Amino acid sequence: MASQLSRIMRPDDANVAGNVHGGTILKMIEEAGAIISTRHCNSQNGERCVAALARVERTDFLSPMCIGEVAHVSAEITYTSKHSVEVQVNVMSENILTGTKKLTNKATLWYVPLSLKNVDKVLEVPPVVYSRQEQEEEGRKRYEAQKLERMETKWRNGDIVQPALNPEPNTVSYSQSSLIHLVGPSDCTLHGFVHGGVTMKLMDEVAGIVAARHCKTNIVTASVDAINFHDKIRKGCVITISGRMTFTSNKSMEIEVLVDADPVVDNSQKRYRAASAFFTYVSLSQEGKSLPVPQLVPETEDEKKRFEEGKGRYLQMKAKRQGRAEPQP
Amino acid sequence: MASQLSRIMRPDDANVAGNVHGGTILKMIEEAGAIISTRHCNSQNGERCVAALARVERTDFLSPMCIGEVAHVSAEITYTSKHSVEVQVNVMSENILTGTKKLTNKATLWYVPLSLKNVDKVLEVPPVVYSRQEQEEEGRKRYEAQKLERMETKWRNGDIVQPALNPEPNTVSYSQSSLIHLVGPSDCTLHGFVHGGVTMKLMDEVAGIVAARHCKTNIVTASVDAINFHDKIRKGCVITISGRMTFTSNKSMEIEVLVDADPVVDNSQKRYRAASAFFTYVSLSQEGKSLPVPQLVPETEDEKKRFEEGKGRYLQMKAKRQGRAEPQP
Amino acid sequence: MASQLSRIMRPDDANVAGNVHGGTILKMIEEAGAIISTRHCNSQNGERCVAALARVERTDFLSPMCIGEVAHVSAEITYTSKHSVEVQVNVMSENILTGTKKLTNKATLWYVPLSLKNVDKVLEVPPVVYSRQEQEEEGRKRYEAQKLERMETKWRNGDIVQPALNPEPNTVSYSQSSLIHLVGPSDCTLHGFVHGGVTMKLMDEVAGIVAARHCKTNIVTASVDAINFHDKIRKGCVITISGRMTFTSNKSMEIEVLVDADPVVDNSQKRYRAASAFFTYVSLSQEGKSLPVPQLVPETEDEKKRFEEGKGRYLQMKAKRQGRAEPQP
Repeated sequence: MASQLSRIMRPDDANVAGNVHGGTILKMIEEAGAIISTRHCNSQNGERCVAALARVERTDFLSPMCIGEVAHVSAEITYTSKHSVEVQVNVMSENILTGTKKLTNKATLWYVPLSLKNVDKVLEVPPVVYSRQEQEEEGRKRYEAQKLERMETKWRNGDIVQPALNPEPNTVSYSQSSLIHLVGPSDCTLHGFVHGGVTMKLMDEVAGIVAARHCKTNIVTASVDAINFHDKIRKGCVITISGRMTFTSNKSMEIEVLVDADPVVDNSQKRYRAASAFFTYVSLSQEGKSLPVPQLVPETEDEKKRFEEGKGRYLQMKAKRQGRAEPQP
Repeated sequence: MASQLSRIMRPDDANVAGNVHGGTILKMIEEAGAIISTRHCNSQNGERCVAALARVERTDFLSPMCIGEVAHVSAEITYTSKHSVEVQVNVMSENILTGTKKLTNKATLWYVPLSLKNVDKVLEVPPVVYSRQEQEEEGRKRYEAQKLERMETKWRNGDIVQPALNPEPNTVSYSQSSLIHLVGPSDCTLHGFVHGGVTMKLMDEVAGIVAARHCKTNIVTASVDAINFHDKIRKGCVITISGRMTFTSNKSMEIEVLVDADPVVDNSQKRYRAASAFFTYVSLSQEGKSLPVPQLVPETEDEKKRFEEGKGRYLQMKAKRQGRAEPQP
Repeated sequence: MASQLSRIMRPDDANVAGNVHGGTILKMIEEAGAIISTRHCNSQNGERCVAALARVERTDFLSPMCIGEVAHVSAEITYTSKHSVEVQVNVMSENILTGTKKLTNKATLWYVPLSLKNVDKVLEVPPVVYSRQEQEEEGRKRYEAQKLERMETKWRNGDIVQPALNPEPNTVSYSQSSLIHLVGPSDCTLHGFVHGGVTMKLMDEVAGIVAARHCKTNIVTASVDAINFHDKIRKGCVITISGRMTFTSNKSMEIEVLVDADPVVDNSQKRYRAASAFFTYVSLSQEGKSLPVPQLVPETEDEKKRFEEGKGRYLQMKAKRQGRAEPQP
C-alpha cells in the first residue's frame, strides 16, 4: 500500500528568491518513508517497533519548487531484507493555479526497525510481496551495493571542520560554516530520537549557507549524495552541522556536510559523528538560468586532496548521466 | 478528483495529555479544502484566482487523535453554485503501530474564488460534474440552507465580549495589549519548564504590538531593560503577557511588560508574577530612518507617576551613554 | 570553551518590513546561554542538572537584522559564583551575499543550575578558570550589583496592568480569555490574507483555554458550530480572538469565540468582526473517560440570555442526534 503526503509550500519553506529549500523536500520525503516503513514493520503481530532512517541514496533535484505550489510525496516499499526496508519516494510539484505538474525528486531510503521497548534492538522485517519475480533479485543487488558503500565511507568519520581567521574569498575557509542546534521535542519521534528528515533539513541549510557565501547569488540544491546515518541522535543533544566546500565545476559546487552530536547533560557519553553527506548546489540568475560559479581555491594538502576526490565524483556522475542520456540538472 | 493530505502528529500538535488539538485538525481540514477548491476554480482557462474560506458547517470530533498517529485528510468537491464551492472533508487517524484506523471528523466547507489581480472581486466557479443527478439538487438545498443561516447569524456581529472603551489615541489605554499563551511542549526544556528565551520572545511580541498600535508605523526593538525571572513557568500553565506604554521621548517609546503564570490544571497553585521588564522601541521610515513618535498622554495618577519614572530611566541612560561617548541606538 | 549557534533568518522571524523581531534574537541569545551554562554545570561528575535563566542584563539592539541574513550567536562563561553562572553573549549578523558583518547585540545572562531529580533544588556551580586574575574580582562586582538591583526591583511584582477583578470560580468572567496575534507571513496565502485554517486554529486555542480554566482538567474539542468568515484578514493586522463560556450541560461546555481584526498600520480602516463560532468541549479523565463539568453560573442579564440560547442549541442538537440514532460524542 502506497503512502501519500501533500502540503502547500509556505514562505518559511523557501529562500528569499521563493525557491523551496532542498531540505524542506528531504524532510517531507523522510516523513513519507518513515510512515510507510513503520506501518509495514508493525504489520504482523509481533513486538512493536519504529522505523529509523539508516541511509538515503543519491538524490537529484530535477526541477525547482516555489512558494504556493503543492508538494505531493508518494512512497512505496520496494524491497525488504531481514533487518531493513527499502522505500522508493517520488515528489511532484503542482501549481494549483495553472495545473502544471512536475516531477521534482526520486529518492530511495533505507529504514531499520527498532524495538519500542529497547531502541538499541533491531527487529526482523516482515517480507514484502513482489508483483514481479525479478524485483526481489534486483532489490537484493541494491541492498548489497549500498551495504558495501556504507563500509567504504566509514573513514569519513574522523574528519572535522576547523575555523580560520580572515580567509581570502574563494578559499575553503572563506565559506566554511556551522549551524548549532539544540534538539527539541518537535524534532523527535515518540521514542526520543531525532527524525532523519530533521537532520537532513539542517544539513541542506548549512550547505546552502556555504554555497551562498562562496558565490553570493541565489543558489539551489541540485543533488545530494548518499547520506549514511551512523548513529541515532537523542533528545537533549546539541548537534553541530558543519559544511565546507570541496570542489567546484564550471556550474556546480560540492559541499561536504558533517553532523556531530553532543549529549550536553550526560557527561559519560562523548561527542560522536551521526551523519555525513555531499550536497551539490548550483547558482541561478534572477530568470532561473544556471550561472558560472567562482572557482574554489584549495590551499592545504587536505583541501587539494578533497578537491581531487570531488572532481572524481563529479566526472563519474557526469559519465553515468551521459551513459543514461539523462538531462543534466 | 479527490485531494489527500497526510501528516504525523507531533508534540506541538497536542496538549500535555497527548490529545491532538481540535485546532490542528481544523487547520489541516482547511488546507485540504483550499487546495482542492483553488485547483477546481482554476481548471478552466480564465482569470487566475484563489479560493477563500467563507464558511465551515458544524463539525463533530468523533474520536481523539494522539501524538505519533498519522492524520489522513481527504477532500472532495460535492457542489458548486455560481460563486461558491462546497467541499466535503474526511479525517482518519491511523495508528501505524497497531494498524487501527478511526474516522475522527467529517466537515463541510464553503469557498469563494477571489481574483488574483483584485482580491475584492469574486469570480465564477466552473460547474462540477455529478455522478448521480440527485446530487445537484441535494447540493442546491444545502447551499440555500447555509445562505439562510448565514443571514440569521449576522446579528452576532454587533455583539462583543469586552465593553467598548473607545479610548483616545495616544493614551495608555489605547495601545495597552495582552497576549495569552498556553505553554506547549516546544516551549519547554526536557524538564518541563519554559525556556527563558521563549518568555522573552513573547514579551518582545507584546511590546511590539503596543508600539505599533501607538505609532502605526514600522517599529523595532531598540533596547531591553534588565529582565528578572522571578519564578519558573511549568508545562501546562497559561501565561498572560501584558504590555503598556509608560513613557515617550521624541524618538523612542518605553513599554512595560509583565508576565503572569496561571497553573490551569493545578488548582492548589495561584497565579504568580514570573517576569517583568521595560522594552524601548523606535519607529522607522521605509528607508530605515528613525521617525518622531506621537507623545504619550498619561491620564490617571498612576500613569503620570509611571511616565515620570520612565523619564528618569531615559535621562539616566542618556547620561550614561554620553559619559561613555557611545553612539545612541 | 565558547559556544556558538548560527541560523538563517526566515520570514517568520521578521515583521512585514523584513526586520527580524528583537524577540527572535533574544530567544537565540538565551538558547546559546542555556547550552553553555548547562554544559559547564555538568562538567564535573556530580548530580545532573539543567541551567535555568535567572536574569538578563540591559541589552541594546545596535543594528537591525534582516531576512536571509545569518545570525551568529556566541556565548562565553565570564564568571561563576557558588550558585550562579554569568554568560556573555555576542550576536553578529552576516549578509552572506555581500559578506558584511555587524555586531547587533551584546548581552549578559545569569543562570542557576537546578537538579534534574528535583527542579526546586539549586546545585553548586563548578568554578570557571580565569585567564586574568582581575576577571574574578570584576565578575564578583557585577554579581553583587545585579543581586542588589534584583532586590530593589522586587516591588514591581505587586503591580499589575489590569485591575484584579478576582471573579468567582464558575462565572463567565472567571474563564473568559483573549488571544492577540500579530499576523505573520506563514499565516497568509500568497495573496496576503490569512488562511481560514490559521484563524480556526487560534479560535480553538482560545476556546481550549476558556474550557481548561473553567474545569481545570484535560479538555478536548467535541464539536464546532458552523463558522462564518465575514471578512478577509490581511497581512499586518493584529487579530484579537476572544472566548467566553455560554452554557454547560452535565458533560459539555459551550464557548463562544469572536475574531476581530485590527489593521494596525493602515489608519483609515477600522477594527472589524472577521469570524465567530461556538465550540463545544468535554472534560476527560486520565483514562480518557468523559467527566462531569462544573456548572456555569451566569451573572448578568446578557449572560443568562446567552445561557438559555446555548441550552436551546444543545437540546436541538441532542434531538437531532437521537433522531438520526447517531452515537453521542
